[in-house]
Amino acid sequence: MFGIDCGTEITGFGVVDSCDEMHEPQLKYQAMGAIRLAKTRALAERLDQVFRELTVELERWRPDTVAIEEVFYSVNAKSALKLGQVRGVALLAAAQQGIPVAEYAPLKIKSSVVGYGLAKKEQVQFMIARLLGLAEPPQPADAADALAIAICHIHTAQTLALQGSGLQEAAR
Amino acid sequence: MFGIDCGTEITGFGVVDSCDEMHEPQLKYQAMGAIRLAKTRALAERLDQVFRELTVELERWRPDTVAIEEVFYSVNAKSALKLGQVRGVALLAAAQQGIPVAEYAPLKIKSSVVGYGLAKKEQVQFMIARLLGLAEPPQPADAADALAIAICHIHTAQTLALQGSGLQEAAR
Repeated sequence: MFGIDCGTEITGFGVVDSCDEMHEPQLKYQAMGAIRLAKTRALAERLDQVFRELTVELERWRPDTVAIEEVFYSVNAKSALKLGQVRGVALLAAAQQGIPVAEYAPLKIKSSVVGYGLAKKEQVQFMIARLLGLAEPPQPADAADALAIAICHIHTAQTLALQGSGLQEAAR
Repeated sequence: MFGIDCGTEITGFGVVDSCDEMHEPQLKYQAMGAIRLAKTRALAERLDQVFRELTVELERWRPDTVAIEEVFYSVNAKSALKLGQVRGVALLAAAQQGIPVAEYAPLKIKSSVVGYGLAKKEQVQFMIARLLGLAEPPQPADAADALAIAICHIHTAQTLALQGSGLQEAAR
């Protein structure tokens, strides 16, 4: 599972496996990173940098799905457009490798990791470290958020699978 | 000169040469088109469609510069983010072919074509037809807007060149 946290200055990514070596359901940390955009470069070049670096990571990890934060509209139009440009090339990087994209609302992501939608950033980082068995809270926050998005997708998929098998049980 | 008018449903493009066959400064219509996005497809696939179709056109026409409308913030954040996603992949298409991007404000684009920044859409289409010697106003409006952006860039470049030669004259 590959999570992306888009930002106009830093775009984080995080890779989490949903199974351990025995194919048992278990969150397993794989990688994280942050793509920092050089402010001095032209906008199109910065977008090219995000696209290329994400493409390299997607080719390396070959995830089944890319998970990304849903749009939230509390930002102003100027910020939204800037964020949209980065988000557009991130979605394109997934599409060009034929990887489906799942979107999750910020509240759902936080509550999936901390159990509380309005949790603070530090709480999220602390819980991610616990869930993934990391010695320290993941840094930077953008990479931590990307891991949270990946974990949210895994939890959601597992819940849906459980519900599905429950429905099958009920139908018997 | 290649102009792009980004939109969440239709993205227009227009190609205009700044010289005629004798290399004299003269607006010369080359092509226009509109990329219509299928609403039924996933967002990432739609962005992939815009990227691929623009890439094909850029490879066909090999422009020196891509001209695009500057961001305007009169829209709401939701629309701005959607527009930003399309704009991001359009800018990426240019960057991946090493083509520099020039941005022009909407007011400047209209005043460059019609001589009046608040001109109506029909006036812009009418003037483009006159400037490019087209039998009819270009359709759809998104393709017409892309032609207007291309013309704006040509006019701006010619004005700058004239000012430059004027400065050289004055310095003698």
